[in-house]
Amino acid sequence: MEKVAVIGGGSWATALVKILSENKSQINWWMRNADDVQHLINYRHNPRYLSQVSFDLNYVKPSTDIQAVVASSDWVILAVPAAFVQLALADLPADAFAGKVIVSAIKGMIPRENILITEYMERAYAVPNSHQLVIAGPCHAEEVALEKQSYLTIGSHDMTTAERFCALLRNRYVKANPLDDLDGIEYCAVMKNVIALACGIARGLNFGDNFQAVLVSNAMFEIERFLDSIMPIHRDLSGSAYLGDLLVTAYSQFSRNRTFGNMIGRGYTVKSAQVEMNMVAEGYYAVQSIYELNKKLQVAMPITDAVYHILYERIAPAVEFEILKDKFR
Amino acid sequence: MEKVAVIGGGSWATALVKILSENKSQINWWMRNADDVQHLINYRHNPRYLSQVSFDLNYVKPSTDIQAVVASSDWVILAVPAAFVQLALADLPADAFAGKVIVSAIKGMIPRENILITEYMERAYAVPNSHQLVIAGPCHAEEVALEKQSYLTIGSHDMTTAERFCALLRNRYVKANPLDDLDGIEYCAVMKNVIALACGIARGLNFGDNFQAVLVSNAMFEIERFLDSIMPIHRDLSGSAYLGDLLVTAYSQFSRNRTFGNMIGRGYTVKSAQVEMNMVAEGYYAVQSIYELNKKLQVAMPITDAVYHILYERIAPAVEFEILKDKFR
Repeated sequence: MEKVAVIGGGSWATALVKILSENKSQINWWMRNADDVQHLINYRHNPRYLSQVSFDLNYVKPSTDIQAVVASSDWVILAVPAAFVQLALADLPADAFAGKVIVSAIKGMIPRENILITEYMERAYAVPNSHQLVIAGPCHAEEVALEKQSYLTIGSHDMTTAERFCALLRNRYVKANPLDDLDGIEYCAVMKNVIALACGIARGLNFGDNFQAVLVSNAMFEIERFLDSIMPIHRDLSGSAYLGDLLVTAYSQFSRNRTFGNMIGRGYTVKSAQVEMNMVAEGYYAVQSIYELNKKLQVAMPITDAVYHILYERIAPAVEFEILKDKFR
Repeated sequence: MEKVAVIGGGSWATALVKILSENKSQINWWMRNADDVQHLINYRHNPRYLSQVSFDLNYVKPSTDIQAVVASSDWVILAVPAAFVQLALADLPADAFAGKVIVSAIKGMIPRENILITEYMERAYAVPNSHQLVIAGPCHAEEVALEKQSYLTIGSHDMTTAERFCALLRNRYVKANPLDDLDGIEYCAVMKNVIALACGIARGLNFGDNFQAVLVSNAMFEIERFLDSIMPIHRDLSGSAYLGDLLVTAYSQFSRNRTFGNMIGRGYTVKSAQVEMNMVAEGYYAVQSIYELNKKLQVAMPITDAVYHILYERIAPAVEFEILKDKFR
């Protein structure tokens, strides 16, 4: 039986626990909140997210003890918001991940340090490249809960390990494929949250479907320029790990980045939008990291610039989109 | 004053008349129905489509006389469904278009002959390549009526002519750009209707957003393979004339191809869906033409094949999508 730690109690973590435990892996599930753990043990569902999903406690072991959870697992899936990774792992010794495969299900970067999750795990815990995977793909947790057909892509430098992990995920409603572009997939997952936020702002400003389609087209070129600058290998950006992931976030009703952007476009302040949503929109942090990284790269990134100016420099969304609109074609 | 014939009375024709007449071109507007022409003259709006749009009759001259309309114009925009082009132009002599620029706003092919509109105009009326343009871009007529920001791409073999036509379109809410890939744009516009139909079928079968994102990703590769086979030049398929146009059709509530597909997915017959919608879904004819063309090309086109089998060979949508689902990644 494969032993998998899932770190995090949010909707995506919950969806992954569902998929993996149904395949009879043993899931050591860490979440911060002791009440939630007790609720899971008593009632077999997560009280906060995807609460319609019922878990088989023969396979799912909820716990607040991160050291025990990690120590007893061969795979460790990180599924907390990027801004909380350091805090979540703070109690672990430097060699806690030795010999284990780390799987990032996080679509964001470490704030202020502006590094990817995989980079952080290498620096802080000496996890080698070959022992790191990232999960991408157009996959809303809410649709996994409904067992809607979904596709996941596992980015890796080591295709054998990626394929082994794919095998743990595959089931009646999930298809999983390995892809050897770990960094490109990870950066793209970060950027798509920025683009989804931009799509939300556009909707909030009363732009329509015609404009959103052009925004997404231009975003694909922006992502391509950025990836070609930071990690120049050949990649098919129309693939479901890149374009697909962007689409599901930019167009879906479930996207919190899009919802957050929509509120900003309609005139909410960042603070009031965050309070109202009671959820972290990863794109809020992501845009700052990408913007900072791009100070060195100097790639043309008009959408990222606009979102950054709106969220961090309090420029009116209407002003930024007036400029953006003239740059698109 | 530029003299522009618009052939057709549908929503896209009506939107183009609005854009061009507001820029003070003289529009000679042909529509088949004499009552509609009279209504336009009496009340200044098209009774059937975008009827909230009011026209300035100093610039818009509605007529049922196609010979007079074409003879008195320097530009001729074709905006009838592809299946009705031959009928609409039937009364015109072979030299009717001599010296004029023909602009196809049609997103379809001549049924049975399986040729593009521009090919048909060359064969039937000897219109040279240099005198042909196509209008593409993610642009729902309904949003033009609402003056939502939109982007058009003018495909051409002659960039000077394309740029002249762009100048007639540009205004406060429309941006227009020339692009030297007339055939690629025209084929892509045809194919996106097939893809939108597939997206509708998927929705009708109760697939979710995760699947649709993967469907669109896979569709981009299918379009790329087809275009590379039939017209192999370098093109950026993420551009708004390709991906953008696909997105607006595949995701928008206004898309009649998507709506038609949705009904098919939910179990309507082709006949009953057509009767219920009271509109032609171009994708219904397009899929037959692309399927026939591909008998020679032999490109892998699983989505086109599935839609064709469902619409023309009465294979159950659920069966075809079960097969398709395993081919995606």
